[in-house]
Amino acid sequence: MRIIADLDVARSTILRRGGQPEDSEGGQAAREANRRVWREPLTIAEVVDRILRDVASEGDTALRRIAARVDGFQAEEFAVPVDIVGAARAAVPRKTVHALELAAERIRWFHERHVPRGWEIRDETGVYGQVVTPIERVGLLVPGGRATYPSTVLMLAIPARVCGCREVVVCSPPGPEGRPSPVILAAAAIAGVDRVFALGGAQAVAALAYGTASVPRVDKILGPGNAYVAEAKRRVFGTVGIDQIAGPTETLIIADDSPDPSIVAADVLAQAEHDPMAAAIVIALGENAAAAIAAAIATAIESAPRRSILEASLAHNGGVIVAPSIDVAMDLANAYAPEHLALLVRDPWRYVPLVRHAGGVFVGEPSIEAIGDYVAGPSHVMPTGGTARFSSPITCHDFVKITSLFAIAETGVARLGPAAADLARAEGLENHARAIEARDREKEHVGV
Amino acid sequence: MRIIADLDVARSTILRRGGQPEDSEGGQAAREANRRVWREPLTIAEVVDRILRDVASEGDTALRRIAARVDGFQAEEFAVPVDIVGAARAAVPRKTVHALELAAERIRWFHERHVPRGWEIRDETGVYGQVVTPIERVGLLVPGGRATYPSTVLMLAIPARVCGCREVVVCSPPGPEGRPSPVILAAAAIAGVDRVFALGGAQAVAALAYGTASVPRVDKILGPGNAYVAEAKRRVFGTVGIDQIAGPTETLIIADDSPDPSIVAADVLAQAEHDPMAAAIVIALGENAAAAIAAAIATAIESAPRRSILEASLAHNGGVIVAPSIDVAMDLANAYAPEHLALLVRDPWRYVPLVRHAGGVFVGEPSIEAIGDYVAGPSHVMPTGGTARFSSPITCHDFVKITSLFAIAETGVARLGPAAADLARAEGLENHARAIEARDREKEHVGV
Repeated sequence: MRIIADLDVARSTILRRGGQPEDSEGGQAAREANRRVWREPLTIAEVVDRILRDVASEGDTALRRIAARVDGFQAEEFAVPVDIVGAARAAVPRKTVHALELAAERIRWFHERHVPRGWEIRDETGVYGQVVTPIERVGLLVPGGRATYPSTVLMLAIPARVCGCREVVVCSPPGPEGRPSPVILAAAAIAGVDRVFALGGAQAVAALAYGTASVPRVDKILGPGNAYVAEAKRRVFGTVGIDQIAGPTETLIIADDSPDPSIVAADVLAQAEHDPMAAAIVIALGENAAAAIAAAIATAIESAPRRSILEASLAHNGGVIVAPSIDVAMDLANAYAPEHLALLVRDPWRYVPLVRHAGGVFVGEPSIEAIGDYVAGPSHVMPTGGTARFSSPITCHDFVKITSLFAIAETGVARLGPAAADLARAEGLENHARAIEARDREKEHVGV
Repeated sequence: MRIIADLDVARSTILRRGGQPEDSEGGQAAREANRRVWREPLTIAEVVDRILRDVASEGDTALRRIAARVDGFQAEEFAVPVDIVGAARAAVPRKTVHALELAAERIRWFHERHVPRGWEIRDETGVYGQVVTPIERVGLLVPGGRATYPSTVLMLAIPARVCGCREVVVCSPPGPEGRPSPVILAAAAIAGVDRVFALGGAQAVAALAYGTASVPRVDKILGPGNAYVAEAKRRVFGTVGIDQIAGPTETLIIADDSPDPSIVAADVLAQAEHDPMAAAIVIALGENAAAAIAAAIATAIESAPRRSILEASLAHNGGVIVAPSIDVAMDLANAYAPEHLALLVRDPWRYVPLVRHAGGVFVGEPSIEAIGDYVAGPSHVMPTGGTARFSSPITCHDFVKITSLFAIAETGVARLGPAAADLARAEGLENHARAIEARDREKEHVGV
């Protein structure tokens, strides 16, 4: 495990993320992969363009053709029958069902506490405020493929239900049996999802954004996905609501010499095992801590499962950085704006107020990210790639929208009207000014 | 003024909006305009592509070249000197300055009331919550060109300042004198904007998203713009935060026979005068009300300023629809999801709870949209094009982001750890399970 003692080197290597998948070497690899699937060396953007265009114009016909190409088989129908979703629990180990139920309860508990509420304020000019309403129909993307993530079903669908969304639809790619795995369906049943579709990738985004005969058009699409999903979400942004553009997962751990190095190493491996693009970075306070943690990682990796993923991830995006003080470490963390920030230091609460950009902060050694991923309560869908500078984890705010309330009173017309008319004229909008003054004239008529 | 008595016709004409600018007839017109500017018949998407690419790679050099092409002159510097911004108030009529100050005070008042605050909740497993932090640097787009909108400066910059953003930057296209007009600069001074740049269009979006030697890279870009700005915002979404994609402005008025028809007509004209793409639609309750309102619009337009814009707007996107009842009218309004919804009916508060999708609702005859545009308090930047189904007006939420707080206690590891480990294993993430169990082993060692 590499140790980086020079902060400038750290900033210009692992803390400086790579480019976007579409403009990095990923581009060439994607072209090669697409040559096999599409018989042309298409870029990610070109594939997504084609999928969006075809699904918009041909609907299910295009979806079936694309599924045959990408998934390698011809789907008969994308909708998973409701009785199959309902029966899925029985096909999953009881222990897993109970764990899903505990997770669901915790996620519900946390999200019920922050459902945005409308409010009003009154003064002598009228009543103003915000009316909060649920987004009616949401489409949730649940990755499949190499792994299945029932936890993501809960993290997206439960907040939607808590916020009162009328219809909650999940798209998840089909496994070998032609539909998402039973554990995904069980999670959907536990979360109260209305409909599940065996669809993934950019084609799921296209179907949800435009609607087809079998897949309903939704108002907002949420959830993670690969580079194709990210590009498709970017393209349909504005046509439909989009939560955020997800990239590879990241964890930045700040550790002093208080935690057992093997604990830090375990957290690093838990992060790195996600996929070869995942980033697991430690900022150690002092050279001794750094050396001990690096050694513990090297030891742990020897007997760890998923070793080739761990090695790829750590070689490309991982490392132990030596920082001279926690202030420097916090500055580096804020500049990086990680998805997950773990504070494995003495007196960790002292540093929470210094966190300026992070998806989630894990305070102290018992606050294990791997527990937060499943059952703590807050969502595990968090901003990646430095987007924590401007975006948030999935919260209830993602499932509602606001209507501004203007109830200007007669007294408000008198008090505010002249200034509004002045500004309208300063902007060259004479008819605005006249609309205001028409009320004043009317009042004169009726003698108010 | 056309009256549409058949609701199916209404739904398939004015209530069904046109396509996106880039795929409508606007496409051909854009190619023609771009042939003059760029010497090639480029689409909007192609122009935006080129601008983004050039500004990303060449910075200010590209900005100067693009400005020379688009604005027709070679800008020496884009940054407006601070002393010129500060002195602009003196170049604006006192009445306008006072109106801007009143508007600023009202906007501040409304937004100070809804700055999101962090919160925590504790149970036997630990402490969870949300930490709210301001977005550090925001770039605000203020349209120029045919009109100047100082009100938009206030509507964007004051919430940013209220929320604690560290740096607030405005980009607005230069007028004939090479910089934004004095009233824009005066509004910037009143709102406490840090820096103003004489830049508009997709090049402003590019500069703010990537940064150049003279324009700082920001964390989020907010504000309205034309089809080029909309396309540029869509492209950089995810690289930088984006508020929403703005389209032409819209007002839907529901009117019974209680308001004076000339009042309704005045509101219609105030909306239609924005630009030829603006939509001003009335849903009248009953044929008599419809006829009276249509006649009043026809009369008012005779003596109205900006008549050619009014006529173009009303011919393409305006009309009076006859609805048999207010319930039907509300259904039509919710399906349309207008930017502005005005309730010019008896007992208007009764219908506020029926509003499901709208940017803003104006309750009753004195609640004049033209006052709300300037001095009521809530932002006038609201979702257009039906995006009120999933998005909100600009509020304080646009200027902050959330970090989820996880402070799991030792008791939480014991209570939640086994379920989290089960779910990790169900997802094939063995190292996650081990990271949890490593803590339990550690506890045994120290005898906890």
